[in-house]
Amino acid sequence: MAAEQLTIALDANGADAGPAEVARGAALAAAGGEIRVILFGPHAEIAPSPGVEVVDAPVSIAKAADPTRAVRSTPDASIVQAVRAVADGRADALVSGGSTGAALAAGLFHVKRARGIHRPALAVLVPVPGRPFLLLDCGANVEVRPEHLVQFAHMGAAFMEAVMGIARPRVALLSNGTEPTKGTEDVVAAHAALAGAAGLTFAGNVEGFAVGTGEADVIVTDGFTGNVFLKVMEGTADALLRAVREAALSSARAKAGGLLLKPALGGLRDAIDPEAQGGAFLLGLRRLGVVPHGSFGANGIARALELAARGVRSDVPARTHERLAAAGALRRAPEPSAAPATVPDP
Amino acid sequence: MAAEQLTIALDANGADAGPAEVARGAALAAAGGEIRVILFGPHAEIAPSPGVEVVDAPVSIAKAADPTRAVRSTPDASIVQAVRAVADGRADALVSGGSTGAALAAGLFHVKRARGIHRPALAVLVPVPGRPFLLLDCGANVEVRPEHLVQFAHMGAAFMEAVMGIARPRVALLSNGTEPTKGTEDVVAAHAALAGAAGLTFAGNVEGFAVGTGEADVIVTDGFTGNVFLKVMEGTADALLRAVREAALSSARAKAGGLLLKPALGGLRDAIDPEAQGGAFLLGLRRLGVVPHGSFGANGIARALELAARGVRSDVPARTHERLAAAGALRRAPEPSAAPATVPDP
Repeated sequence: MAAEQLTIALDANGADAGPAEVARGAALAAAGGEIRVILFGPHAEIAPSPGVEVVDAPVSIAKAADPTRAVRSTPDASIVQAVRAVADGRADALVSGGSTGAALAAGLFHVKRARGIHRPALAVLVPVPGRPFLLLDCGANVEVRPEHLVQFAHMGAAFMEAVMGIARPRVALLSNGTEPTKGTEDVVAAHAALAGAAGLTFAGNVEGFAVGTGEADVIVTDGFTGNVFLKVMEGTADALLRAVREAALSSARAKAGGLLLKPALGGLRDAIDPEAQGGAFLLGLRRLGVVPHGSFGANGIARALELAARGVRSDVPARTHERLAAAGALRRAPEPSAAPATVPDP
Repeated sequence: MAAEQLTIALDANGADAGPAEVARGAALAAAGGEIRVILFGPHAEIAPSPGVEVVDAPVSIAKAADPTRAVRSTPDASIVQAVRAVADGRADALVSGGSTGAALAAGLFHVKRARGIHRPALAVLVPVPGRPFLLLDCGANVEVRPEHLVQFAHMGAAFMEAVMGIARPRVALLSNGTEPTKGTEDVVAAHAALAGAAGLTFAGNVEGFAVGTGEADVIVTDGFTGNVFLKVMEGTADALLRAVREAALSSARAKAGGLLLKPALGGLRDAIDPEAQGGAFLLGLRRLGVVPHGSFGANGIARALELAARGVRSDVPARTHERLAAAGALRRAPEPSAAPATVPDP
């Protein structure tokens, strides 16, 4: 039985490689017939392809210094139009080719938070050879309260279960030590709440070493620490692989060795390739959003569209809600209007 | 002219390799004649060597779950005796073979904070090929106020100038974006204060990518984020080098390549070897403390003793005080007694 066709709204602006490359990714994803793409971007730069409807939206706010303000003041921006297509029900999920900040701000403003969610979070599938883990929050909320961290745990678990097919994902809390007493006051409070949370496989605190050990499927932290985590990882990997390359050019002998080793190391390069993972996920809104890395090419964009479709088919927002309800972790009292992406908690 | 002989108090307990290996490090450092070591540890396990006075102190609190309590309740512990030798003036600086928490707690209790310092910090020389940078705080203070971050900046600058011989060290603030408005409220406030700080070469905010770019000589952050930074870096490097090793065993061709490349990669292994850097530094006490990594062997211990001696000769505490005074960043009102190492701010 063929799966029902889903519609994904895709913002073509903001990717490093330009709108034409994003459009090539859309064409790749639509070729299978299960995904229809509404592509918002500069019509003149985009080649037509089957299954891709292009809406001319040349205005980009991907580089705006204040995404929240840009979203409100620029209704014709491509990301705003893409998000509104999702909010209106013309599309089932969002994929943004560019700025995380603009996608988050537009998503909060137009798609809105899912019922019972304190704060949406930005979750990144970290490419570890063999088994990626989900790190959240990676920058949506630089300051969080313990109940936010608890919700992130359930949001991450629901995502890994529904989209990545992992039964009983192991959820860990990032801290500066494995003991339950380690960390800031908020982290210690979140640990205590998670230790008793219903329906959650809580693996306790993990340290930064967990980046390479595979000991958790979901790692929960605040958006400031998560952002540092991700960038230190990328920076370290880049510096090391650069150093290995330099070592392999340092002598005739090393050059010969480097040539022989190259095919095997190519596999490693692929295994930690962020393009293979689809990018970051906006969790906690009424609809799923995916923000590929700005450096992605067509393959990465296509992978992001496929993950968004998988998230829609497995209904990540509903699964998240069920988990939070079962654990008694839904937001009870209505909060004032959602805080914009980059403004810290008062 | 021969330099005046300095005395360093060294705790032999707590290192992974055991007291005998720490004693071998002491012997190495003392062999030059410029350093005298008072070594506190189990006499029975330690071979005598010239320039090393052994004080029998078999009790170790290196693995204590609550270092502050252990320090207060165990006056005969080797780290407490070593720290008291520094406090009494029998030694000029401290090197601990083992636990950071115990060294910090004992240092706070017996050596005390330097005049005008809010909080001591744990600073780590991060081994980047070519030019290491100093990261602080790496775990002494999981929660900090902006004025603490400002002091860490000056403490780090004084250290890099005095001990590493770097003129006008570039000091950066870790955040989730380079713009001055990025980060938590406290980070934004610290940025504003540092931007106008006298006598400081402030390089602005850096992201986690700075781990590999060499763009700063000192990177300032809170102890929670610094701890995560360091461990993500170590975890990523370990996982990648393991993967390179595995790739080099994946086929006969790759094996041949690996063998040819090995000598060149050995240089890389040395360049990022934490032993070469001497470990972590306890800054902000009346005397300098050095805490080598628990995994260090004799060479790493010897390097730590040499760095401690260099810190004494260049009088890091006095230079730090001068910098803070010139910048108007000394603590004005006396604070209540120093907070213990692992207890968050009330």
